[in-house]
Amino acid sequence: MTMYWCEFAWLGERDGHVESGVLIDVVDDRIVALTTGIVSPPAGSVRLSGVTLPGMVNGHSHAFHRALRGRTHADTGTFWTWRTQMYALADRLNPDTYRALATAAYAEMVLAGYTCVGEFHYLHHGPDGVPYADPNEMSNVLVEAAATAGIRITLLDTCYLAAGLSPSVELSPTQRRFSDGTCEAWGERVAASAIDSSVATLAVAIHSVRAVPRAALAPVAAFASERGLYLHAHVSEQPAENEQCVAVYGLTPTELLDAEGALGERFTAVHATHLTPTDHALYGASGALCCICPTTERDLADGIGPTNALRASGVQMTIGSDSHAAVDPFEELRAIEMNQRVATLTRGNHQPGELLTMASEHGARSLGWPLAGRISVGALADLTTVSLDSPRLAGTDPAQAAAAVVFCASAADVHHVMVAGRVIVSEGRHRSVDVSRSLRRAIQEIWE
Amino acid sequence: MTMYWCEFAWLGERDGHVESGVLIDVVDDRIVALTTGIVSPPAGSVRLSGVTLPGMVNGHSHAFHRALRGRTHADTGTFWTWRTQMYALADRLNPDTYRALATAAYAEMVLAGYTCVGEFHYLHHGPDGVPYADPNEMSNVLVEAAATAGIRITLLDTCYLAAGLSPSVELSPTQRRFSDGTCEAWGERVAASAIDSSVATLAVAIHSVRAVPRAALAPVAAFASERGLYLHAHVSEQPAENEQCVAVYGLTPTELLDAEGALGERFTAVHATHLTPTDHALYGASGALCCICPTTERDLADGIGPTNALRASGVQMTIGSDSHAAVDPFEELRAIEMNQRVATLTRGNHQPGELLTMASEHGARSLGWPLAGRISVGALADLTTVSLDSPRLAGTDPAQAAAAVVFCASAADVHHVMVAGRVIVSEGRHRSVDVSRSLRRAIQEIWE
Repeated sequence: MTMYWCEFAWLGERDGHVESGVLIDVVDDRIVALTTGIVSPPAGSVRLSGVTLPGMVNGHSHAFHRALRGRTHADTGTFWTWRTQMYALADRLNPDTYRALATAAYAEMVLAGYTCVGEFHYLHHGPDGVPYADPNEMSNVLVEAAATAGIRITLLDTCYLAAGLSPSVELSPTQRRFSDGTCEAWGERVAASAIDSSVATLAVAIHSVRAVPRAALAPVAAFASERGLYLHAHVSEQPAENEQCVAVYGLTPTELLDAEGALGERFTAVHATHLTPTDHALYGASGALCCICPTTERDLADGIGPTNALRASGVQMTIGSDSHAAVDPFEELRAIEMNQRVATLTRGNHQPGELLTMASEHGARSLGWPLAGRISVGALADLTTVSLDSPRLAGTDPAQAAAAVVFCASAADVHHVMVAGRVIVSEGRHRSVDVSRSLRRAIQEIWE
Repeated sequence: MTMYWCEFAWLGERDGHVESGVLIDVVDDRIVALTTGIVSPPAGSVRLSGVTLPGMVNGHSHAFHRALRGRTHADTGTFWTWRTQMYALADRLNPDTYRALATAAYAEMVLAGYTCVGEFHYLHHGPDGVPYADPNEMSNVLVEAAATAGIRITLLDTCYLAAGLSPSVELSPTQRRFSDGTCEAWGERVAASAIDSSVATLAVAIHSVRAVPRAALAPVAAFASERGLYLHAHVSEQPAENEQCVAVYGLTPTELLDAEGALGERFTAVHATHLTPTDHALYGASGALCCICPTTERDLADGIGPTNALRASGVQMTIGSDSHAAVDPFEELRAIEMNQRVATLTRGNHQPGELLTMASEHGARSLGWPLAGRISVGALADLTTVSLDSPRLAGTDPAQAAAAVVFCASAADVHHVMVAGRVIVSEGRHRSVDVSRSLRRAIQEIWE
């Protein structure tokens, strides 16, 4: 058993209340005891200065996008011109280069305080869509990368079959790497997956209503529900998707997914940026979650998601770093609130405790880790500790530490990270991966 | 003479082009020679790894607001409820506590890469508006703080006379600390100021059309123009200001300032968030600048400023950290572009070179330092060097370093800062101020 004494800890209170002097006993990958009000660190305990949070959950990642950071700002454009650059990157990857890149990207996430990642994975096959000898090789590479980086992973194996809502448009050569041809072939490949460990689990995804024809939506949803798998989908990131979907089906993407049985308590709509009031109500009524990715959604000029309206409809929200324009859970959380502030001209739309809950309990729920995302007895020992000593946080009020962390902290302030009881980051450094060097090498190799 | 060899340097190109191997010779506070294409550091030179930029200019600061960081997010509210908290803070300050706070706040700015600050100063007098023995004591305290922190300062001595546009509302006790009673008394006090050194200069400000009655606007503008002083004003930060101004005068705040002769090449409108097309044209035609403070404007729920429209009208823009919700020039710059992306759903509204120009050449122009804000022979030796080694920047393309810095860097990546030829930050540390400790002590003393 290892005892960790936290100077301050946020134990999940929605009002942002932070306890001081919290002793957390960890055995293997579990929290086995929790005591508050311990004034000083007991003998033999590890001192965690600053504020300890449940491990931050990154609900939506495309690991390979990390190689685009800082390289897409040369011209004017849109989400769609950016996608052309992203496809050029996808074209260059093979299992070896992707393993190196994903390892570095996941290590950056842990260093930033993320303890769990939902990898929305669609780069399944080799050039021109030819499967690898093991057709799940790319999925396995990502799970290996997560293990090396020390992050918990939910591998969302993504169904991608079509180039758009018009059946006459053929898949591009790059898109053929994403496609299994039919939803049956997708299901056979996924059914053969061996992903299942104490730190890795399988889930599935519908890429979008653009990439999965209507006839395939219900089979994918049934595949998930029959196996008890969590299901995600990109939904309404861009107005063009909505317009095309309404033109073809007479339904919004959300209405279409609902009509085909995809919505429910294990469903997460990723982005959910351009929704109708009916869409909000459908998510609320079904118990589905919405994963908001604000640093990507502003980078890609997607817009501001309707988080006030979703909350009013009873929808639980999560966060994701998606394209990794930024990897910083605190930046994502405050961006949700700041977006509402500029949209509504009022402050305090989402309270600090509510925002931290998105990145912890709700994120863990969305990724199929019901025992993660909180600091309590029996929970998985995933912990993120933020130092209060940096110039960013110096002088903030410890009694308002939840607000201080959400509104003032940076990934650079993360001091200590534990995943499944293992210390992955200490003294602000990843213990086994040289993160900057790994990123630089992996990305240079891809672009050279 | 000291020689600095920059691995990469941005020399002001609007297209974001970055030179590699740039040798900068510095004598006293000036750049005396500049050579590009030097492959490796010459003997005796100081190596600056990463990207060197002209020193970043913080065009708008209220140093004391730093003590509010992280402490205003407990409830819902607006700009106006936030202002109540800000007044409670102002009430607690005296010359000693403000000196300590401003020193720490300015030191944080230098550590973040700012080499020059425009301090929009209105907390002139003691409790209940009683002047200090030296009526300019608070101004002098701020200039002393800047000198201790090692930052260049433009002290904008601000005229504040009224509690709002309705003449029947009296100044609150806190507001009496801001007021000289009449614009003549304000002018007499400012005329007695001794601020004038190689690193400190005087400018003036109209707090806003809320705080300066119409009859006093022309006299303040004349005071500035007769002495060749730069003039700033808060303009249209909130819709309520516009509504009241139009109701009372039949003019927008910008139209009112123009009618009273305030606009011109030495005028900067701070915020300029809620403008009309006529306002844009007035700024463009007059050669005035607009200072955008996006991290504050989102924090205070002000809204998104019309930066695309201002640029189209030929208006030069600058940045400011204002309330210091964040002190990070790169976060300010990218927020300007990201705000336009979510508002327009297109990318690349403001190019990286254009954004860096706001924080350098335009900022220096707005604060009355025409020889600052660029890396060229004869310019003031103010330099900010950003490391490319952090996880945030690792793997970005050095050929696109301007974009990498603007879109990916954090204040935590600033490695070396020179102000007036003096090295203030090296190896990422302030050489003479323990920034976090100073902030913590100064802020605790105020709130205790």
